[in-house]
Amino acid sequence: MFCLVCSYYFFFFFFFFKQMNKNSSNIMALTPNTSNKRETICIFGTGDFGRALGHKMIQSGYPVVFGSRSAQKPSLIPKDAEMLSHAEAAQKAAIIIIAIQRQHYNFLTSLAEILHGKVLVDVSNNLKINQYPESNAEYLAQLVPGAKVVKAFNTVSAWALQSGTLDASRQVFVCGDDMEAKQRVMDVVRALGLTPLDQGTLLAAQEIENYPLQLFPLWKFPIILSLCLTTFFFFYCLIRDVIYSYVYDNQDFSFFITISIPNRVCPILALILLALVYLPGVLAAIIQLYRGTKYRRFPDWLDKWMLCRKQLGLVALAFASLHVLYTLVIPIRSFVRWRISSQIISQALNNKTEPLNNTYAWLSDSYLALGILGFFLFVLLGITSLPSVSNNVNWREFRFVQSKLGYLTLILCTAHTLVYGGNRFLSPSSYRWYLPNAYMLSLIVPCIVLVVKFVLILPCLDKPLTRIRQGWERNPQYSEQSNYIINKSAV
Amino acid sequence: MFCLVCSYYFFFFFFFFKQMNKNSSNIMALTPNTSNKRETICIFGTGDFGRALGHKMIQSGYPVVFGSRSAQKPSLIPKDAEMLSHAEAAQKAAIIIIAIQRQHYNFLTSLAEILHGKVLVDVSNNLKINQYPESNAEYLAQLVPGAKVVKAFNTVSAWALQSGTLDASRQVFVCGDDMEAKQRVMDVVRALGLTPLDQGTLLAAQEIENYPLQLFPLWKFPIILSLCLTTFFFFYCLIRDVIYSYVYDNQDFSFFITISIPNRVCPILALILLALVYLPGVLAAIIQLYRGTKYRRFPDWLDKWMLCRKQLGLVALAFASLHVLYTLVIPIRSFVRWRISSQIISQALNNKTEPLNNTYAWLSDSYLALGILGFFLFVLLGITSLPSVSNNVNWREFRFVQSKLGYLTLILCTAHTLVYGGNRFLSPSSYRWYLPNAYMLSLIVPCIVLVVKFVLILPCLDKPLTRIRQGWERNPQYSEQSNYIINKSAV
Amino acid sequence: MFCLVCSYYFFFFFFFFKQMNKNSSNIMALTPNTSNKRETICIFGTGDFGRALGHKMIQSGYPVVFGSRSAQKPSLIPKDAEMLSHAEAAQKAAIIIIAIQRQHYNFLTSLAEILHGKVLVDVSNNLKINQYPESNAEYLAQLVPGAKVVKAFNTVSAWALQSGTLDASRQVFVCGDDMEAKQRVMDVVRALGLTPLDQGTLLAAQEIENYPLQLFPLWKFPIILSLCLTTFFFFYCLIRDVIYSYVYDNQDFSFFITISIPNRVCPILALILLALVYLPGVLAAIIQLYRGTKYRRFPDWLDKWMLCRKQLGLVALAFASLHVLYTLVIPIRSFVRWRISSQIISQALNNKTEPLNNTYAWLSDSYLALGILGFFLFVLLGITSLPSVSNNVNWREFRFVQSKLGYLTLILCTAHTLVYGGNRFLSPSSYRWYLPNAYMLSLIVPCIVLVVKFVLILPCLDKPLTRIRQGWERNPQYSEQSNYIINKSAV
Repeated sequence: MFCLVCSYYFFFFFFFFKQMNKNSSNIMALTPNTSNKRETICIFGTGDFGRALGHKMIQSGYPVVFGSRSAQKPSLIPKDAEMLSHAEAAQKAAIIIIAIQRQHYNFLTSLAEILHGKVLVDVSNNLKINQYPESNAEYLAQLVPGAKVVKAFNTVSAWALQSGTLDASRQVFVCGDDMEAKQRVMDVVRALGLTPLDQGTLLAAQEIENYPLQLFPLWKFPIILSLCLTTFFFFYCLIRDVIYSYVYDNQDFSFFITISIPNRVCPILALILLALVYLPGVLAAIIQLYRGTKYRRFPDWLDKWMLCRKQLGLVALAFASLHVLYTLVIPIRSFVRWRISSQIISQALNNKTEPLNNTYAWLSDSYLALGILGFFLFVLLGITSLPSVSNNVNWREFRFVQSKLGYLTLILCTAHTLVYGGNRFLSPSSYRWYLPNAYMLSLIVPCIVLVVKFVLILPCLDKPLTRIRQGWERNPQYSEQSNYIINKSAV
Repeated sequence: MFCLVCSYYFFFFFFFFKQMNKNSSNIMALTPNTSNKRETICIFGTGDFGRALGHKMIQSGYPVVFGSRSAQKPSLIPKDAEMLSHAEAAQKAAIIIIAIQRQHYNFLTSLAEILHGKVLVDVSNNLKINQYPESNAEYLAQLVPGAKVVKAFNTVSAWALQSGTLDASRQVFVCGDDMEAKQRVMDVVRALGLTPLDQGTLLAAQEIENYPLQLFPLWKFPIILSLCLTTFFFFYCLIRDVIYSYVYDNQDFSFFITISIPNRVCPILALILLALVYLPGVLAAIIQLYRGTKYRRFPDWLDKWMLCRKQLGLVALAFASLHVLYTLVIPIRSFVRWRISSQIISQALNNKTEPLNNTYAWLSDSYLALGILGFFLFVLLGITSLPSVSNNVNWREFRFVQSKLGYLTLILCTAHTLVYGGNRFLSPSSYRWYLPNAYMLSLIVPCIVLVVKFVLILPCLDKPLTRIRQGWERNPQYSEQSNYIINKSAV
Repeated sequence: MFCLVCSYYFFFFFFFFKQMNKNSSNIMALTPNTSNKRETICIFGTGDFGRALGHKMIQSGYPVVFGSRSAQKPSLIPKDAEMLSHAEAAQKAAIIIIAIQRQHYNFLTSLAEILHGKVLVDVSNNLKINQYPESNAEYLAQLVPGAKVVKAFNTVSAWALQSGTLDASRQVFVCGDDMEAKQRVMDVVRALGLTPLDQGTLLAAQEIENYPLQLFPLWKFPIILSLCLTTFFFFYCLIRDVIYSYVYDNQDFSFFITISIPNRVCPILALILLALVYLPGVLAAIIQLYRGTKYRRFPDWLDKWMLCRKQLGLVALAFASLHVLYTLVIPIRSFVRWRISSQIISQALNNKTEPLNNTYAWLSDSYLALGILGFFLFVLLGITSLPSVSNNVNWREFRFVQSKLGYLTLILCTAHTLVYGGNRFLSPSSYRWYLPNAYMLSLIVPCIVLVVKFVLILPCLDKPLTRIRQGWERNPQYSEQSNYIINKSAV
């Protein structure tokens, strides 16, 4: 019988290779047909990225000339590529790719005459965000004023170019002051199978150079915040549910760590983070009402909080999804099955049959229904925050979804937690070691947000707020001064 | 112990502010570096939107000149901005943003000489869709024939510009007859951190002006239809399941309103709406076969029905997802637990053990399996309708997914409902007050669609239909007349 | 009571028509306003696609002239369109759409003089991928050297143009050597309500012509592979779970086919396919370490395997999702309910109450928790592979998600399967007919991948590998020869 198992692996690998060869005609279609019409491209620098670009360009049909200090050809340069001195190489091509580090740019000033009118493509990256006062591309443009500098290719990795497995973004940000030079570079980008994105003039170069150094900048705060809250609530529940039982009842419920406690922590975090998404909007409204103008900047922390609201919401959605999964596996857990069956057996042995408790059926069902509807709306909000979806809705539609549906979600989720509590809020048995149940703590922030929001939509407050947001000022004198503050910080 | 709870809030806010300050270097990278190279931009009009744009432009490094009737500077204008008369301001800049309402455009004719050759950016919006016969931008171009009019910025809200929290779409639709003027405006758009989208010539202005006024136009019909059907089926099930039990058995099942009845209504709506997605295609085929030509327009209602098929399908998917959630929580409901345990106890007390009913196990399992597969394909269909996914498949792939997989989904979901019914179709106990079970009603539309579709793919009908769709006509005379009808309506 | 049912249908259709008419003003906004400013467009060829384009252009306000051999107007041509000889029609317009098949292009050489300077739009498609050595558009450019050839519209179907129901991609790939001609064609594309995508020069035409012929080329291998593995494991489980029980215990568990066996096959396939996503990366690292260079191409099968990793992963995710659904319905299955209740009844009748087995509770809960976390991360990976999401992350972020989170997912899913096995690995009862449990087979590939990966991240291997990937070579001589091989294949 074991041969069956072996034959499966045999079969699998046989099939695999056969299929691979069959596919080849389709895959070929991905690499553009090479013709001899392409113009020559010169690459300054024989480092890793220069060589990778050279390889890729030769594969795409471009004649490539490498420019180097020593005209001697190192072994790693593609055979088809020519190897000349910088000056000779530059004369052979109209497009010159500068695959050199910024600190070595100086020698280019000596070639200024030859480079005059040529398209120089800056592909460099820095090691830190905003490392230099001006971007590398702008620095290059200052060094060689006669050349047309274009920034491109810096977001593509050498490894991805080489291996041809561009699963990641194929986008190449391109910027430059000369329209025609930019168009020519964008044509090269397209010929390599990448997608050029015009980012305007060379002023955008700094941002393009910072882009590949970022690692989820807007996600850092939501993730660190949720990690801290998770740790806090995990130990809080551990004390209440596991250690308390162990100390008082001498029961070992340590396996609660795997599912029961995460299923308490996840909904709590989802609710708190969701409320924190709407809290800055409420605070902003209060600040505007208090100041009587919208022409003053919010405090810095509020501005930054508002910028990462979407990320906060998505982290909340992640916790809500985990809560749903943890809840749905409840009936499969062996502990739950054991508890239910021992309850039923004890009832059967005692010859008791409980009647249906109608109140409890109502509470349990409406608690579940509120949770389902809340989660459903939450997922809808998550889908509309996908870039391709949010690009297809206009401002009015976006506001409708994010503010109307968002508050409805918050209301449903808060109600879900309140109904879950049911009549346990005041029962003394739910306070172990004077600690309230964890879900009670989670209700504080959302209830504050909902109450303040409810106050703010009262006509007596909503009307002046709307007028302020349309540009009206309660105290123009005050705002003039504030404008001064804004502008000082902006210049 | 309460101090623990307090410390959590303390800790949270302390951490929050610290994190905010840490983030600032990353956030900064989002606003482009300001240099003094930017050209001066003139803004006509000191209303809310003009001021918001002015603020944003000054922040992005543009010198801004406001043009106004009274050269006296109101307090709300940013300090760094100059304030001149219209004529003086216009002379200082090559790009002039007209942040004035359409009804005040007339005075621009007097400035025609100064505005000659300048780029006029129309940012206006209307209050209603198609309010004027021609778009505001075209009207502006007529008023000042010597200027290069570009439509832009109308889809961005002043509030979003001001607060800097552009969670929504950053897309700015740009159109204009002069290529170079359009490019310059698109560079300004990029410099403000927004994404310009070239929409072609000024003919597109009307559409761009209508865009921000829409509120899910294609969703209206599917949503209203599903609301009506939901109401109908909700009361239908209420009568059958709650009121009937109350009248005859005097049992209070009012808590069915929260989960049991929604879980009947949702699958019914999902099935009916899914069938309504495929019904217009079947009707169109019948009409084409009957007419013998494809060169006649379909009736208006069919055209519009076809345009909102995607939205109908997504609403159906929403109901199907709710059905899945409602179904999966069944074992957690306290009513269900009570019913099961009372069944088990009564069996135990009567000393009876039922053998496994193989037929019922088959029915129950295949019913669930069909539902799972149907829902799985339905979600796949939903994912392919995401804009970014459907843009990455070609027409052949799209047809394959939407028509082959779509019909498979419909077949699986209909089979799921049929197997659910099982042998209850003819049992008289399922007719309460002569009302059939609700799921029977839901089967009418999908069965009609599937039967007609099955007839249409018979070779005797499929062959002529394919020929008609390739351009063949049964009765050319007839179509000529119809072309006339099309063209009359098109001109 | 039946009248209620009828009234529902009445109401539905009444409402339907009313709503349709109400919607019309919104729908209208989708078709651009027609003006008389549009330039005349000439269409050569009166076939299906030419007529469909003509209709659409007339609807969008373009005057259309058809060019044909016989100047006699056939009945299918729109009434508003003129019908002239080729030469006369070409003289009337600056843009000429060549809606003729490639084999009839020859006659255009005779019109070379008239076509000089005109924009010729090639809309043709082929029947096979790479049917001709050069693309149709390049062939056309050779035939009429004086004209500006632009490739466009070939990805749009005539049927979609005609019916106006463009649910599918509205993208029109445009390429051409003349910038200005391309811009003019892109304006026409936009005016028809489609989205033009500039693909660069005419060299891209071959790829554009191949595009509409593809049917999920990268999905073929993953889908066929998973079909084969599914078949194998289905019959494997059928033998072990159904036929074995039938032969030895004479029990009919044939209904296992619907849920129990799929729920064994799905997780096995998800795990194997997920491991196969990471196997090629591990193999590539071994090959690079062995060769001591990254400048040699991988074997062909490895290159192709790497190209379809994303698709393999998504198929694995599909199986994992099915596994989740199949698992969550377990407590609703009538077989499971029967088994549980008969167990409880037998316990109750024997007066036995089992104590909670703590070890088993730990195993069961941690098995579920690992599965939930693994599936959660798997879904995250799936979301980041959506085109619109992966376009918004940079290379560094993409690497972080796909490699760090990807391996974490693989570890969690493998651990999930290992804990599921628990202490059953060595028990002889789990070998029926000497066949091991199916999940044991599924562990082979992921365990190999994880062990090899663990070895590769040991510093003694990781350091040289990192250096190799940064361009270092152990044996430069060796690589020179290999470069020769690459270049030979590239030219």
